[in-house]
Amino acid sequence: MTLENLNSNKSFGGWHKQYSHPSDSAGCVMRFAIYLPPQVANGQKVPVLYWLSGLTCTDENFMQKAGAHRVAAELGMAIVAPDTSPRGEDVADNESYDLGQGAGFYVNATESPWERHYRMYDYVLNELPALIESVFPVTDQRSIAGHSMGGHGALVLALRNPERYQSVSAFSPISNPVNCPWGRKAFTAYLGRDTARWVDYDASVLMREARQFVPALVDQGDADSFLAEQLHPEALETAAAISGYPLTLNLREGYDHSYYFIASFIEEHLRFHGRYLG
Amino acid sequence: MTLENLNSNKSFGGWHKQYSHPSDSAGCVMRFAIYLPPQVANGQKVPVLYWLSGLTCTDENFMQKAGAHRVAAELGMAIVAPDTSPRGEDVADNESYDLGQGAGFYVNATESPWERHYRMYDYVLNELPALIESVFPVTDQRSIAGHSMGGHGALVLALRNPERYQSVSAFSPISNPVNCPWGRKAFTAYLGRDTARWVDYDASVLMREARQFVPALVDQGDADSFLAEQLHPEALETAAAISGYPLTLNLREGYDHSYYFIASFIEEHLRFHGRYLG
Repeated sequence: MTLENLNSNKSFGGWHKQYSHPSDSAGCVMRFAIYLPPQVANGQKVPVLYWLSGLTCTDENFMQKAGAHRVAAELGMAIVAPDTSPRGEDVADNESYDLGQGAGFYVNATESPWERHYRMYDYVLNELPALIESVFPVTDQRSIAGHSMGGHGALVLALRNPERYQSVSAFSPISNPVNCPWGRKAFTAYLGRDTARWVDYDASVLMREARQFVPALVDQGDADSFLAEQLHPEALETAAAISGYPLTLNLREGYDHSYYFIASFIEEHLRFHGRYLG
Repeated sequence: MTLENLNSNKSFGGWHKQYSHPSDSAGCVMRFAIYLPPQVANGQKVPVLYWLSGLTCTDENFMQKAGAHRVAAELGMAIVAPDTSPRGEDVADNESYDLGQGAGFYVNATESPWERHYRMYDYVLNELPALIESVFPVTDQRSIAGHSMGGHGALVLALRNPERYQSVSAFSPISNPVNCPWGRKAFTAYLGRDTARWVDYDASVLMREARQFVPALVDQGDADSFLAEQLHPEALETAAAISGYPLTLNLREGYDHSYYFIASFIEEHLRFHGRYLG
């Protein structure tokens, strides 16, 4: 396994690093960023929060804009931010921002031309943690979080694999993708027209039917321009009420869909995960 | 005076806003960003920290990457981040990243083709504060800070105008531009070949001769790839020793020239300015 270190920056006494590696799941070279808190310099193993970004993002947006390193350094928590899709000249793409490269939607695609590389569900669930846990000084305690498309990904991964994650959180998640334009467009392309195959990737459907629980925190700004058409947090709230899911959903007055919203509340999310990661 | 609001984002209970306006000093439309802390919603007037960014930056880099809003919100401090040069199709430019648009060096250019628009010294010293203080709920208490080229700008503005600023700070400033490649290239173009005209824009020369003091804080990473060739903080330290200038210079082990370094220590800088801004 070839892991290439692309960049290292000291940050809050720890290290932000970027890597590329050939990925079996994605069939291409993938990039990720990791924040290693100062505690690892003392030989301590730390738990890991996986962060899934939104449409058009790379491994860089969260690390540069969320202001998360300060609290991760205090709590002794690593953060891993994968890219949002496979990438490269050989990888299928689409000219729109919400399909193809930068828009993997954290699914395993079954349809042509996407099925060869677009296997972000497998990549984030299995391949990336196996790699991280074999190379870096981390424990096997994992939590997962994300924003928008990445909030959808984090919720779906935790809801389908409650044994793999200690906690889950999301900012402005696409909560009910089978019922919004972003989700319908992506799922039609990646999974085909049979909507029965979409529900495995819909957080509201999964939460309604959940029997095994992972503590869940969701923050949503009420001035988010995507709220009414794309995000549907009310579907998640209804689902949680039906299954008794331990969901805390905060509606935040005046906040939009940007990283300024994430930065404003990331400390609360990190402390939430810190309680379960131990 | 036409002030156009381009963008607004709620952040840590306050507001990040971007504006454009026609500038007399620059003879073109200029952009700036402002962070207004939550205290202004209660009718309170707040002091202002001006932040000057480095080469290639715009009004956005600091606001997105420094993680400064959290502490500014706590302290009740506005932050204003101007662009780093005049811009536009009619504005002289150069293909290199360290001259022309994005590289104004906070001087008043005297040489062709730069002298018409490149008057960032006047813009930051006079025009921008006059505008800010006439439009926003701020006091006339000002401090100034910056990074790299902007650290140079902040130090020069405070050293030449101690009556205008309560305090000054810099990350990785170009401390002795008359003696480094970035400074010599920019000053030759903007100010001409007569080096006697450069010293008014050299923080180390100005600090050595200073008689009126502004409390000054400088942070420099020792793993900064520009340190040896471009930054020369030792010249600033020598100058401060000669004049008795109240300079605190911290060398930070392992930190580089990036915003990860700035984010790691911005809280200390904001609290430093907060002590003098009252």
